[in-house]
Amino acid sequence: MEIISKIKTMQEIADSLRRENKKIGFVPTMGALHQGHLSLIKAAREQNDALVVSIFVNPLQFSPEEDYESYPQVMEKDTELCEQMGVDVIFCPEMAEMYPPLPLRERDGVRETTVERQSMCLTTVHVSEITSGLCGLFRPCFFQGVTTVVTKLFHAVKPHTAYFGQKDYQQAVVIKKMISDLNMDIEMQILPIIREKGEKGLALSSRNAYLNPEERIQAGILFETLRIAKLMLDNGERDGVRLSSWMKENIEANPLVLLEYAEVCDTEILKPLFQIETRALLALAVRIGKTRLIDNMIWEQAG
Amino acid sequence: MEIISKIKTMQEIADSLRRENKKIGFVPTMGALHQGHLSLIKAAREQNDALVVSIFVNPLQFSPEEDYESYPQVMEKDTELCEQMGVDVIFCPEMAEMYPPLPLRERDGVRETTVERQSMCLTTVHVSEITSGLCGLFRPCFFQGVTTVVTKLFHAVKPHTAYFGQKDYQQAVVIKKMISDLNMDIEMQILPIIREKGEKGLALSSRNAYLNPEERIQAGILFETLRIAKLMLDNGERDGVRLSSWMKENIEANPLVLLEYAEVCDTEILKPLFQIETRALLALAVRIGKTRLIDNMIWEQAG
Repeated sequence: MEIISKIKTMQEIADSLRRENKKIGFVPTMGALHQGHLSLIKAAREQNDALVVSIFVNPLQFSPEEDYESYPQVMEKDTELCEQMGVDVIFCPEMAEMYPPLPLRERDGVRETTVERQSMCLTTVHVSEITSGLCGLFRPCFFQGVTTVVTKLFHAVKPHTAYFGQKDYQQAVVIKKMISDLNMDIEMQILPIIREKGEKGLALSSRNAYLNPEERIQAGILFETLRIAKLMLDNGERDGVRLSSWMKENIEANPLVLLEYAEVCDTEILKPLFQIETRALLALAVRIGKTRLIDNMIWEQAG
Repeated sequence: MEIISKIKTMQEIADSLRRENKKIGFVPTMGALHQGHLSLIKAAREQNDALVVSIFVNPLQFSPEEDYESYPQVMEKDTELCEQMGVDVIFCPEMAEMYPPLPLRERDGVRETTVERQSMCLTTVHVSEITSGLCGLFRPCFFQGVTTVVTKLFHAVKPHTAYFGQKDYQQAVVIKKMISDLNMDIEMQILPIIREKGEKGLALSSRNAYLNPEERIQAGILFETLRIAKLMLDNGERDGVRLSSWMKENIEANPLVLLEYAEVCDTEILKPLFQIETRALLALAVRIGKTRLIDNMIWEQAG
C-alpha cells in the first residue's frame, strides 16, 4: 500500500494505471473510518483493479462554529484498516497541498479570517436548488465545500467509480448531479447505511464518537422514528405533511434531542412531498448535546 | 478528421488516446474561426499527438440582452479550416447534449425563462475576486458561464494541454486560476493576440464581422490607445491613475465609441495599479454601435 500526499504524484499513479487499462475505484473520506466506510471500501475493492481511499478533513465544508478543529483524526488506525482491506493507495494531502495559503501580505484587511479565506483558492463548485433544503438550510457552507473538494479529489485521483454512503443522502444526490452536470466521466455508487447492531440501530458516523452514554441512548430516537414512519407508509399513510408532523412531534417529545428537520421528500429533487405515491425519502437531522446527527430511509411501495 | 457530437463518444476517444500514451491538445472555440483561432490550432498541432477543436456557442456566458441569438455560425467553413489545419477531432455537441432541457412539466412558474434556466444543469463553477473587475463589471453572467462550460468541455475532451488567446486576457487568467484551484491536470497555454495587418491593428475577433466600414475605422482607437500608452510607459510614466485617465480621455474623444473601461492593472490579480513597477496589463473595452470590442497589451520594463 502506498501513502501519497502530493496531488501531482497521485495524478501520475492514476495516469499510469489508466494507461494499463486498470479500473480505479475511489472512496473519499475524512478519516476516522468505521464499518460504514469499510463497506464502501469492500465494494470498491471487489469491483476495481486499483483502490484509492482519500483521507482529508475539508475545512471548506465546516462553518466557523462547527467541529472542524475537533473532528476525530486517527491516521494510524485508519492506515492499518486500509492495509487490512487491501487498499492500494491512501491519498492524504496536507491542508497546504489542497488549499495553498495566501502570501501573508495579502491576508490583511481585504479577506475574512475563516480558514478557507486564508487560502488562495478562489474557485468553487456550486449545485443550486437541491442544496437549499434539508441540511443545506442548517449548514449554509456545507454543500459548496463538499462539491468543491470532491471535484478537487476527483481531479487528483481520476477514478472510474466513486463510492458514497446513503447515510449522507442529500450529499450523494448533490454529487451525483454535479457529476452529471459537469460531464465528469465517473460512475457513482451509493451504498446502504450501516447501523449499529441491536434495536437502537444508530447509523454509523464518525461523529458518534462525541456522544456520551446517555446521549447515545437518546440517539435511538432517529432510527425509531424512521422505522415507525416506514410502518405508517406500509400501512397506507400517503399524506406527507401529516407524516412529517408526526415525525417532528415524536422527536420533539424527547427533551434532550433538538430537532433540525424531519421531512418527507421526493428522492431526487428533495422537495417536500404533500402526496406520497410510490417512493419517498424520510430524512432527519437533530442535535444531541454538541453532536449533530442525521439519518434517513428510502421508502418504496412493496410489489 | 472526425466530427463528434456526443460527450460519451468524445470521452471514449480521449480514453483510447490516453491509453496509447498520446498527448491530447485542445482548442475550445465558439466557431466562426479566424486567424487568431488558427494560431492556437497551429501551435496545438505542433505540440500534440492528437488535436481536438470544440465548436460550441455557450448560452450560459451571454446575458439576455447580448448577441447569443445572432452570434456568427459558419459550421461548414469552420470544418473546412479545421480539415486544412490537420485537426483530428471536431467536438461540436448540440445544445441539448451540453444542457439537457428540463422536462416541460417542470418549466412553468418556478424557474425563470432565460435559456440556461430551462436546462436542468444546476451546477456552476465560479471563480471569485479576479472576475469582479474589467469585463466582469459589464458582463455579470460571463465568467461563470465560461468557467462552467470550459469545465464541461475539459471533462469531455480530457486534454493534456489547452490553448487560449491573450485577446481574452481576463478569461485566460480566470481559467488558469480555475485549473490550478480545482487540481485539473491540464497545462494551459496563452498565445499572443493576432491583429489585422496595417496600422489600425484591430485585434481579430468573431465579433468584428458585426462592424460596418465606418465602425471598423473607429475601432482603430483601441490599438492606437494601447500603443501610445505603451510608449508613455516606455518613456517613464509610472502613475497608473494618470495613465488610465489619459486612455479614457483618448477614447472618449471619439464620439462614436462608447467606453466601458480603460484600466492599468496587475497582470495576475487584475487589480488597478496606482504605482506601476516592472509589469502592467493595459485593458480596454468599448462599444461601437451594437458591437462590443475588447483589447489589451502587457507592458514589461525593457532589459
